Amino acid sequence: MVYDGALAEVIEQLGALPGIGPKSAQRLAFHLLAAEEEEVQVLADALLRLKRQVRFCDRCGNVSEQELCTLCQDQRRTEETLCVVEEPKDVMAIERTGEYRGRYHVLGGAINPLDGVGPDDLRIKQLMERLQAGETTEVILATDPNTEGEATATYIAMLLQPLGITVTRLASGLPVGGDLEYADEVTLGRAFAGRRDIGG
Amino acid sequence: MVYDGALAEVIEQLGALPGIGPKSAQRLAFHLLAAEEEEVQVLADALLRLKRQVRFCDRCGNVSEQELCTLCQDQRRTEETLCVVEEPKDVMAIERTGEYRGRYHVLGGAINPLDGVGPDDLRIKQLMERLQAGETTEVILATDPNTEGEATATYIAMLLQPLGITVTRLASGLPVGGDLEYADEVTLGRAFAGRRDIGG
Repeated sequence: MVYDGALAEVIEQLGALPGIGPKSAQRLAFHLLAAEEEEVQVLADALLRLKRQVRFCDRCGNVSEQELCTLCQDQRRTEETLCVVEEPKDVMAIERTGEYRGRYHVLGGAINPLDGVGPDDLRIKQLMERLQAGETTEVILATDPNTEGEATATYIAMLLQPLGITVTRLASGLPVGGDLEYADEVTLGRAFAGRRDIGG
Repeated sequence: MVYDGALAEVIEQLGALPGIGPKSAQRLAFHLLAAEEEEVQVLADALLRLKRQVRFCDRCGNVSEQELCTLCQDQRRTEETLCVVEEPKDVMAIERTGEYRGRYHVLGGAINPLDGVGPDDLRIKQLMERLQAGETTEVILATDPNTEGEATATYIAMLLQPLGITVTRLASGLPVGGDLEYADEVTLGRAFAGRRDIGG
């Protein structure tokens, strides 16, 4: 015997979400069963509103509830630097550092031939169009430091070469607070190659 | 800057569920944002149906969509043994073993003075009423093998003493497939105390 009816369906639906196994799905379902009806209603409403209200910014591709996202609407940000990332979560990660005051461009993924994702599936055409305006002097390629991200950065850098715009890539190296001994060889190799003169 | 609007609300709501941290909540929200509207609708509907349709069995306290759960309705199960557990998930765990063909009684928790759960907050009165029928000859106390579960079992065993019913408790010992070396002292002590003669 397994669960049946609505309980079984909730366990199945929750278990199909990424990172939630059958045991967690069961625990969540019993938690919701014991919760106030209002609490569950609020969750269900929020899920439905998510799909209805959240869209992508027409300009940068970040998540937004309007045509332009709050970052594209913010007049205090400079158009001179444009940071190219794979996903909206990367925008949030960079915003949390508080180090960057330029604009963003979200590609919506990275080039990955094995998954059938080519350059035309990413927002690269829109990136080239934005750069036509001529306001941007530096493009920071902040795609992930893995094979797909590197390939995407290399591809875009090649496209940007004729435009005479400075193209940079985020530094690779040892994570702050990390332990040299536990760094993988590639990261340690990059850290060596990118070593900086600290005077003296 | 953090997320705002419907996306922020979904992340907050999901992050409030047990076992889902802020990173998982963000990942789930983006997964749902990328999913088909229909998929999200199915999940939201299932959540709402859960609260509307699922109730507790009038007799045993297990989850059910009718007055009596499927286990209480099953005429092939014997009334002679009654297995007392804390939660509906415990019923499912025992059913998965396929070893038990009797009835269940779900207490809805365990005695826990620190959390303010006393005997009157559990379905102990209903248990005593069920036993009045006189059909049951053995009560198996299958509450959790922890302090609260042991206290609950001891309390119920005391109440059952005058009824002349056999009262048993699930065996404590080494988990099958486990490693003696890694067993905690209490479990190993119980395994010694409960050692069985295997002939010879």
